[in-house]
Amino acid sequence: MVEHMKWWGWGRESVSFSHADKPALAPFIRANIGLDITRPPTQAPAFGDLRVDGPVLPDGLRDALVAAVGAEHVHTDALERVVHAYGKSLRDLVRIRAGDLGRLPDAVVYPGGEDEVRAVLAAALVADAVVIPFGGGSNISGSLEAPRGETRPVLSVDLGRLDRVLDIDTDARLARIQAGALGPNLEEQLNAQGWTLGHFPDSFSHSTLGGWIATRSSGMQSDKYGDISEITRAVRVVTPAGVLVTRAVPSQSTGPSVREMILGSEGRLGLITEATVQVHRVPEERTILGYFFPTWDEALIAMREIAESEAAPTVTRVADPGETRFSLATSKKGSPVSRLVSNGLKQYLARVKHFDLERMCLSFIGFEGSPGHVRIQRKVVGEIVKRHGGVCVGTSPGQLYDQKKFDTPYIRDFLLGQGALADVSETSTSWSQLATLYTGVVARAHKAFDEIGVKGWIMCHLSHSYHSGACLYFTFAFTSPVALEALERYDVVKSAVQQGFLDLGGTLSHHHAVGTEHAAWLGEDISPAGVSLVSALFEGVDPGHNLNPGKIVPSGSTAG
Amino acid sequence: MVEHMKWWGWGRESVSFSHADKPALAPFIRANIGLDITRPPTQAPAFGDLRVDGPVLPDGLRDALVAAVGAEHVHTDALERVVHAYGKSLRDLVRIRAGDLGRLPDAVVYPGGEDEVRAVLAAALVADAVVIPFGGGSNISGSLEAPRGETRPVLSVDLGRLDRVLDIDTDARLARIQAGALGPNLEEQLNAQGWTLGHFPDSFSHSTLGGWIATRSSGMQSDKYGDISEITRAVRVVTPAGVLVTRAVPSQSTGPSVREMILGSEGRLGLITEATVQVHRVPEERTILGYFFPTWDEALIAMREIAESEAAPTVTRVADPGETRFSLATSKKGSPVSRLVSNGLKQYLARVKHFDLERMCLSFIGFEGSPGHVRIQRKVVGEIVKRHGGVCVGTSPGQLYDQKKFDTPYIRDFLLGQGALADVSETSTSWSQLATLYTGVVARAHKAFDEIGVKGWIMCHLSHSYHSGACLYFTFAFTSPVALEALERYDVVKSAVQQGFLDLGGTLSHHHAVGTEHAAWLGEDISPAGVSLVSALFEGVDPGHNLNPGKIVPSGSTAG
Repeated sequence: MVEHMKWWGWGRESVSFSHADKPALAPFIRANIGLDITRPPTQAPAFGDLRVDGPVLPDGLRDALVAAVGAEHVHTDALERVVHAYGKSLRDLVRIRAGDLGRLPDAVVYPGGEDEVRAVLAAALVADAVVIPFGGGSNISGSLEAPRGETRPVLSVDLGRLDRVLDIDTDARLARIQAGALGPNLEEQLNAQGWTLGHFPDSFSHSTLGGWIATRSSGMQSDKYGDISEITRAVRVVTPAGVLVTRAVPSQSTGPSVREMILGSEGRLGLITEATVQVHRVPEERTILGYFFPTWDEALIAMREIAESEAAPTVTRVADPGETRFSLATSKKGSPVSRLVSNGLKQYLARVKHFDLERMCLSFIGFEGSPGHVRIQRKVVGEIVKRHGGVCVGTSPGQLYDQKKFDTPYIRDFLLGQGALADVSETSTSWSQLATLYTGVVARAHKAFDEIGVKGWIMCHLSHSYHSGACLYFTFAFTSPVALEALERYDVVKSAVQQGFLDLGGTLSHHHAVGTEHAAWLGEDISPAGVSLVSALFEGVDPGHNLNPGKIVPSGSTAG
Repeated sequence: MVEHMKWWGWGRESVSFSHADKPALAPFIRANIGLDITRPPTQAPAFGDLRVDGPVLPDGLRDALVAAVGAEHVHTDALERVVHAYGKSLRDLVRIRAGDLGRLPDAVVYPGGEDEVRAVLAAALVADAVVIPFGGGSNISGSLEAPRGETRPVLSVDLGRLDRVLDIDTDARLARIQAGALGPNLEEQLNAQGWTLGHFPDSFSHSTLGGWIATRSSGMQSDKYGDISEITRAVRVVTPAGVLVTRAVPSQSTGPSVREMILGSEGRLGLITEATVQVHRVPEERTILGYFFPTWDEALIAMREIAESEAAPTVTRVADPGETRFSLATSKKGSPVSRLVSNGLKQYLARVKHFDLERMCLSFIGFEGSPGHVRIQRKVVGEIVKRHGGVCVGTSPGQLYDQKKFDTPYIRDFLLGQGALADVSETSTSWSQLATLYTGVVARAHKAFDEIGVKGWIMCHLSHSYHSGACLYFTFAFTSPVALEALERYDVVKSAVQQGFLDLGGTLSHHHAVGTEHAAWLGEDISPAGVSLVSALFEGVDPGHNLNPGKIVPSGSTAG
């Protein structure tokens, strides 16, 4: 039985975000977006209130699907179809709360192996149906929904039954893992033998290996373990031309990389069934240290110097002043962080270190390996931090961050219940462009807030450092009635932020993919000639547009 | 003025390989392939003896090319056309010595900037001509020659005038460099400002940035600096759909990577004019240490453990027993290596360490960075080496290797002059597969030598270590009259080696690309469905097959 997230929101039914144990949060939100979160929330919608049209599934196709995977793995009931209609973008959450279900899939199919995936794809192509692969359903770029006007049958192919670690090659440090394995599941299977994948995106609990590959995901320890594009050494993909199999060799010079074509392909080239991925021994020691920097500018320079140094931390992360204040405001009463901050640290930072508490920035830097290795890395980093006026505040904030990092997505549903829209946009750019991009994007967001007449909030953190630059991750929010009309105002802000990325030397997305949400900007990012290459690939492999049409490059936009 | 290599062989006219100062070499070669290299060599062919047909260049095309780049940059003379006819594979060297020039280009064009490259491509497409980009001409996979039966005009577009480092972003540690810059030229421009690219393939002196990108090149310090696919952060490429421009961002999630489609594209998608590449500060300290291991098996395990350790060497390289003996036999009289070996080291290794001198393996491991960093790395590596019975022999062999590393390709011409064919084939595979692949490929080569009735030689080194595996680089040789017919016997050996790679878990090529030489095996490496993706891309971008046709995927082999 494949478990799914709430049909109307993020995560498990039993889990939700609460402000009750975080005394500083309600005042913080009231001050910054004028919202009273202590009021009783709007309840999540009742499933019975949804209007779910019946599926359109030709008998021949249904029979072929039943022959492919067995009758018990072909679902056409309303709940299954609604669960598979969308990902979990803000737009998805608002629409589902409003009962706008879009173009529901006509059937949800759960193949149990690669042969069954092949049979499903073959049946779909014979019937001229649309095939949308579904992993954990956490996508926030619109990659999982069928085009509104799609008149052909639409199948959501849920890979959730393909959830096993098949093999660990301990010499090559490679594991073969089925594409439908969720983060916690595969990590547990690896840990049981002393290994880890080291890939921990915020969506970790509810996303799959295949989904990570299909969207070029990045985890919070990417500084050490690499993005999924580096972690993934080989793929198996069911395509219209047969099963694509690449070799798990460490590097090769065999034409344009087919492995790289699959990375980020969002179902447009086929269905990923398995990957061979780099795994690592669970490290002997693992520490995340917290630091405060006096200003964002100093913090950015320190991050750049760490990337340039001989240290090799696993995590480099720093919040801007706004996100720092937000983090402190969400600390639980009696938690290590609230104790740390109340224990005279603020006084020390203000009086002894002359920090402006409104401008200071909270940073986490992670270290892994043997105790000796960790000691050396900490020393190198510590010297850089000190040179930029930073102060180490020990392991307790990092431990807390580490425990709570996968809970963040629950906040959006909480805020929707209270009457605010919150969302995220992320980019990457070079070290030389980071500060300019940050300042420009914040200014554009505020201009957009003014335009739609709200008191808005935008905050940011840097994460994922590389040789030449880093990722900037923005979160923005404003108070609004939660209804379809609100999405027009949301679009003004979201567009201003995305356009800012492109105008200021960033990319459309560092790790959230393109889907439909970002497709309009693709040409600005990779140039029209670049789009023509991607289109040529999609058109050649899938001339009938049966494979997740409309994603990345909208259908109808062609090469040349 | 763009300088070129000898039209008939590798490198500068003034440089050649000699055995005279290497007293152990002639006996070594006599013993192993029965060849007497002390006999007077066959002279290189005289240019005047070649039969060069006139070019077929329609007036309209010639006029358009002259309009594009100026009359002085359009060449149709015999020498220019012969220089641009081939790369420098063994097949190329044998053919050119035999006066077999293949399908010569009709004109050689030297654009001076991206606009001129655009104009050249536009003119070629209007005239339905074939365009073959040319960098340093060092390719050994047949990527530079026109198909024999090509009836359309053929243009070799030499990027040699695009040779400047345009900009160094010192914060982002990125440099914008024109694609036609040769290794020594660009490294000199970078060094002048304290920077290095760190990319040093064997072909370094005669290969270009654009060529490295077009073939997915790898340099001998790739353990630290990465393969060219990692070094290259953005590209500019003149394609039929316009100038493709990607952004120099450190990582992105914007569909299948267009940057990666250009890497390894061998001219099939367009002409690379510029790239933004990662650069590094010239390191404070740089050391290459030599080690001897008692056996190849122990050496391979040590290399794997080094890759798994917290050390991060810049170079990891170890020769098998055959290549170790060859290296010692090529050491110059009075050189540090010959002194080292004669100075009782062999006695020490044999008597004290109980090495079998016929089985021992010479290794080089490189370290860079601050003195403290280098010290720690050396210590970690030293402990691993010791655990596997290895002995450090100091810096002198490494220094010699470092000085002579770019001279190796001259040996092939020397041997051709003496009457022997020598060539290289390289692959990569996982750590778990390395020993099996090595043994199997050596056995297959010897079976092939038996089949063609020669006393052949094959030797190997490991280089380029990765998380999950490494590159194995084989060199083989046998005595033979140097004539076109000899290529049939060469093909028996070359094919046996390449097929061995694929049968035993390796890849077709780690860094020498596909071209025409390896194209027949592509489907076995990346699977037929993988070939159909690559074909779809090429067909969509270049439906008329004007861009370097026949390379990677032979024309006529189509998608799906």
